[in-house]
Amino acid sequence: MQKFINDPSKVVDEMLEAYLEAHSDLVSPTENERVIKYKNAPIQGKVAIVTGGGSGHKPAFVGYVGRNMVDAVACGKLFSSPPAQMFYDAAKAADAGKGVAILYGNYAGDNMNVAMAIEELEDEGIQVKTVVANDDVPSAPKGEEDRRRGVAGEVFMWKVGGAKAAMGASLDEVIAASQKAINNTRSMGVGLSPCTIPEVGHSNFKIPEGKMEIGIGHHGEPGIEVVDLEPAAKVAERMCHVVIPDLPFESGDEVAILVSGLGSTPAIELYILFNDVKRILKEKGISVYISYVGNYFTSLEMSGATLTLMKLDDELKECMDFECDSVGMRQFQRTT
Amino acid sequence: MQKFINDPSKVVDEMLEAYLEAHSDLVSPTENERVIKYKNAPIQGKVAIVTGGGSGHKPAFVGYVGRNMVDAVACGKLFSSPPAQMFYDAAKAADAGKGVAILYGNYAGDNMNVAMAIEELEDEGIQVKTVVANDDVPSAPKGEEDRRRGVAGEVFMWKVGGAKAAMGASLDEVIAASQKAINNTRSMGVGLSPCTIPEVGHSNFKIPEGKMEIGIGHHGEPGIEVVDLEPAAKVAERMCHVVIPDLPFESGDEVAILVSGLGSTPAIELYILFNDVKRILKEKGISVYISYVGNYFTSLEMSGATLTLMKLDDELKECMDFECDSVGMRQFQRTT
Repeated sequence: MQKFINDPSKVVDEMLEAYLEAHSDLVSPTENERVIKYKNAPIQGKVAIVTGGGSGHKPAFVGYVGRNMVDAVACGKLFSSPPAQMFYDAAKAADAGKGVAILYGNYAGDNMNVAMAIEELEDEGIQVKTVVANDDVPSAPKGEEDRRRGVAGEVFMWKVGGAKAAMGASLDEVIAASQKAINNTRSMGVGLSPCTIPEVGHSNFKIPEGKMEIGIGHHGEPGIEVVDLEPAAKVAERMCHVVIPDLPFESGDEVAILVSGLGSTPAIELYILFNDVKRILKEKGISVYISYVGNYFTSLEMSGATLTLMKLDDELKECMDFECDSVGMRQFQRTT
Repeated sequence: MQKFINDPSKVVDEMLEAYLEAHSDLVSPTENERVIKYKNAPIQGKVAIVTGGGSGHKPAFVGYVGRNMVDAVACGKLFSSPPAQMFYDAAKAADAGKGVAILYGNYAGDNMNVAMAIEELEDEGIQVKTVVANDDVPSAPKGEEDRRRGVAGEVFMWKVGGAKAAMGASLDEVIAASQKAINNTRSMGVGLSPCTIPEVGHSNFKIPEGKMEIGIGHHGEPGIEVVDLEPAAKVAERMCHVVIPDLPFESGDEVAILVSGLGSTPAIELYILFNDVKRILKEKGISVYISYVGNYFTSLEMSGATLTLMKLDDELKECMDFECDSVGMRQFQRTT
């Protein structure tokens, strides 16, 4: 296990301690040491954006806390859902009385813990609504979308929800825009190597040299098949052939595209994949409005990549163009 | 070789094609397909900032092209210096008549090719000056600093030079500030695994499981020793014990710190290293003014990290606080 760690049971605590120090101009601690908030949260007059999930997906989840993005985050153990108390504390840290939007991914533990947190929050009169990301196409067949996992599309959900809330929208409006973002988003991952949770000490799954796992999940959940490694252009085709027809994305559509590494894939390979995906989109008459390439949602040092496409309308474009400042996504107002 | 590539001989071309598409709101092509420029370059009234180097270090070098950063970059083959013509073309693409600052790293090929480019540029009456980064402490002993390589400290050199030029400084002022940035900067790397150049097909060096290479270079250049893998706190101590006394950084100093991954090391481990370094700095009375943690200067999928410290004065602080917009470094004006 070639890792820079100290005590394997303390990696998340040490990481968060460092994160608070390194980015003190952006984030603040809360009374719950596993809950990090935007330094200016709660922000009066603004709907609060809250998320949470297992650690090990950096910059997700904590990396999206910031200005016009997420107000507070619950940081679970590596690849484990944060308990209900953490989601509750995150909502409390962010709530400014205008309602709380919890925007998170579709995993059994997160669903259960968010539901428990909401019960408590509502008992205190805090208005909470949720959007549950389920953008990972290979994780369940069409018609069973509510079984699909949330993956890198969550980044677009936070970007849209964060922007909408910052524009002064109501809780219902923030939820509607975030839900539309996810409804319009489809993702798919391909894995080239596994990763190791320090407390386990060895990888929980294998991908043999010369093979790749199509549809792999962000915690090494098995994909739909293991096939021989192919050139990037073929991998891009496989991804597009799953992602594009599922929505479907059609000729004339404008999309946001995110090619995210899973951890150890060099940027150069992500750009090569992007290049091949872009060509396929062009052939299909789908135009790219805004592009993201890099490590936006990872799985420790897993090698591989995810493709995420979001179909845009004017409201989603306005949200994607909106200025934001977080470690994981920082952009100036776009004026194209 | 678990990689998303097509033709191994075309990875840089495909990457640059994708980069231009993905970031068309920031960068533009030039007549030389291996030279990328900031879309608004040349900028009248501003000293041009130019750099270049081998590819495979993303976001270096192309990722630092942008607003208030680098104006044009020469992109060599993987781990290979760009030829003189490319440096020449980059300087021509960026020059607005106020002089060109070529800020690059101390490698034999780059030194030779930059010198040849300058001869031609000066023949045309273009004023060119250089700063040669040599921040990598383990690459040569004290007293032989001019033999040291440039590593992640180059990022601070570009940040300072880019800001200074954007503030309207003269070529001499830009060069003086960039040289001061490098004079005040020390770095050191530790490698945990090798990387593979696609055209070679296998790694050029090995790091056995359970070992780490102290002082490794950005192209796998041998370090000063190979030792048993240690806890992050010990690795941080080793780094600090090399970097801090070399300048030396002393009690009362304020520093910028950069913990960069070499490619495949998860952010969580970089933050853990940062945490341990920060504690050592605190014990020594050295305070951190601004922090960067992430993949700022990589070596394909090498596992490992570099520590970079830069001692600050008022001028360097003003430059580090300055707003900039590039893929590799994007920050809002700091008002602390």
